[in-house]
Amino acid sequence: MSNQSGVLNGVRVLDLTRVLAGPYCGMMLADFGADVIKIELPGKGDDSRANAPQINGESAYFMNLNRNKRGITLNLKSEEGRNIFLDMVRNSDIVLENYRPGVMEKLGLGYEDLRKVNPAIIYGAVSGFGHTGPYSKRAGYDIIGQAMSGLMSTTGWPDAPPTRTGTAIADVVGGMSCTIGVLAAYSNRLKTGVGEKVDIALVDSMVSSLEIINIIYLNTGRIPTRIGNRYEAIYPYDSFQARDGYVIIACGNDKLFGLLKQTLNIDALDNEIFRTNIDRVTHHAELKSILECWTRGHDIDHIVELLLAAGIPAAPINTIDRVTKDPHIAVAREMFVDIEHPVAGKITMTGNQVKFTNKKATIRFPAPTLGQHNHEVLKELLDYSDEKIEQLVNAGIL
Amino acid sequence: MSNQSGVLNGVRVLDLTRVLAGPYCGMMLADFGADVIKIELPGKGDDSRANAPQINGESAYFMNLNRNKRGITLNLKSEEGRNIFLDMVRNSDIVLENYRPGVMEKLGLGYEDLRKVNPAIIYGAVSGFGHTGPYSKRAGYDIIGQAMSGLMSTTGWPDAPPTRTGTAIADVVGGMSCTIGVLAAYSNRLKTGVGEKVDIALVDSMVSSLEIINIIYLNTGRIPTRIGNRYEAIYPYDSFQARDGYVIIACGNDKLFGLLKQTLNIDALDNEIFRTNIDRVTHHAELKSILECWTRGHDIDHIVELLLAAGIPAAPINTIDRVTKDPHIAVAREMFVDIEHPVAGKITMTGNQVKFTNKKATIRFPAPTLGQHNHEVLKELLDYSDEKIEQLVNAGIL
Repeated sequence: MSNQSGVLNGVRVLDLTRVLAGPYCGMMLADFGADVIKIELPGKGDDSRANAPQINGESAYFMNLNRNKRGITLNLKSEEGRNIFLDMVRNSDIVLENYRPGVMEKLGLGYEDLRKVNPAIIYGAVSGFGHTGPYSKRAGYDIIGQAMSGLMSTTGWPDAPPTRTGTAIADVVGGMSCTIGVLAAYSNRLKTGVGEKVDIALVDSMVSSLEIINIIYLNTGRIPTRIGNRYEAIYPYDSFQARDGYVIIACGNDKLFGLLKQTLNIDALDNEIFRTNIDRVTHHAELKSILECWTRGHDIDHIVELLLAAGIPAAPINTIDRVTKDPHIAVAREMFVDIEHPVAGKITMTGNQVKFTNKKATIRFPAPTLGQHNHEVLKELLDYSDEKIEQLVNAGIL
Repeated sequence: MSNQSGVLNGVRVLDLTRVLAGPYCGMMLADFGADVIKIELPGKGDDSRANAPQINGESAYFMNLNRNKRGITLNLKSEEGRNIFLDMVRNSDIVLENYRPGVMEKLGLGYEDLRKVNPAIIYGAVSGFGHTGPYSKRAGYDIIGQAMSGLMSTTGWPDAPPTRTGTAIADVVGGMSCTIGVLAAYSNRLKTGVGEKVDIALVDSMVSSLEIINIIYLNTGRIPTRIGNRYEAIYPYDSFQARDGYVIIACGNDKLFGLLKQTLNIDALDNEIFRTNIDRVTHHAELKSILECWTRGHDIDHIVELLLAAGIPAAPINTIDRVTKDPHIAVAREMFVDIEHPVAGKITMTGNQVKFTNKKATIRFPAPTLGQHNHEVLKELLDYSDEKIEQLVNAGIL
């Protein structure tokens, strides 16, 4: 089930993760050609199998994040289930889990247990707060990562409440951080033979993503807060009211602002207070009102076309339907991919954003139904007979 | 300058990137112990050296994203500069760039040019729209990625405009996607000797991060839009008004909702319309008003303490000053790190979120001043004499 032509061809991953952050990591590795075996609780499976939207009783949420993975069931609380898992670890490269810290240790399957049977194993863990520190045992969800990292306090409008980003960004960034960690550790292990534990917290991941926001407070004492759509570090770089909605104009440096002045030919822009980028950030309100005076008189499409033709970064704010039909995003970049699922029928998923030139990421097969590959995987990895597998199913271990 | 004890010890990276998305990728590799050589335009350097906040004339923005990198200057537009770069490529593993697509080809330094001198080179590119497709040549900034991917259309409040996430999340997620791509390709190259080009678009990266948001539209036809702080897939999972601000309560599954009911002991929660998670998502407004009736009567700290004690995920919404002083985030997880910069003095940066157990990520030395390591790097990599290097400096090539 490994993709012969993927960059991770031949890598085996045991994926114990549920819902989003961990499964996103496993999905990236699977899209790159690794043989990712998702291991779920018998009879129940991943919580997100119950998430909306459901298509013929299958969760599209689950199907997106678990494509390209084989699926088995295994009761890790039973002695026999635990032993089966350890035998699989002997034959694998990477283990992923996103249980609450301490759960794997209680099962006798913590990193220290796994490295005893396979010293080269790469162990990737994602949790709300990480495996060390006073909040370690607290449950962590995306919204908690967004709230405690400070992201929500800086997202939104000055006169409105702290705002959640419209996707589970802490989960995604946590999953990406875990992917980065396990891949870096895997390349080290290819050279040294030594394994590694990678411990990712959603909160830490969001703190890292806050880049200039933390840096401003830490180095100047000013507390960044909600400032709408503008950016702390550059201006003009904001949304502007057009005749038919909002448009983005983004001048990241003096050269682009020069082009903007030249294109719009508005006298008020030739002011010393707008000379350098730091000047423009300071006088953003004056600059916005001058630019918006102009944008209010034109349609989004006209503004975007005019500015792009002059080499000035500009964009419409797309709704989701427009994104999925965009000729660049959907067609040229193949960011939406159809696949046939045995129960759900034809479903559409998000493509992989990592575009390799030689060994491409691919979506090869749909997410597993619960326990779909029990026979296939246990025969292939551990040489079990059909009879033995049936016994394990009947005993509730698979 | 390689970190002996990092997972990427011995890996050499030539980092041509500017501002945020590309530099974030180089920063991750540098924190992991790679020898990352940042290459900047003579006399000017990275645009972000001019970004606020400035400390003794050094940009804290730049210093955060370029710590652990050595820095040289090189004019790639000169024939001699180009040849020096190609000679460095022969001795390197990874090249990173975030120019507008086509710029590297025009310099004679595209992937096809580089693989001729080093077939094993890993080439990581980050741009707004990627190296293929009709928008490829458009300039891309973070806010454009946030706007065109649909993220802004789903962030914020139903009665307010589309909202930018309070950090440059498209740049960060683009930089992470590039890191994932080059590390996966590097592990393949360790086995096969074959290089790879990794082409990352900010817009694609945000589309991938939208997980359930795209999936809802693609598979049901409903267009997700701004819904405030709640989540499309689970409920209760939202911010709630407390006596002294807002608090997060997040029940990701039926078991946690059961615990919440038990803890609060409010009759109205025992309603059939709140039975399953999908029921609760449907009836989120009724459920929010019942819960908020209770939260309004209590302080944030009391609510968080009470719910955490009962095993129910809850959190305050931190402002940035609270984050940087948090005993878990700042102290136990070491997410803020002081370093001495030769010009700026003591500055504080964001720590690395990838916590390895055996070979830790570290912040070893500050960002380079412009051209700081010209002599050191050219002697070490290409065995140039001091005289030759001085000549190149005087000729404007370094």
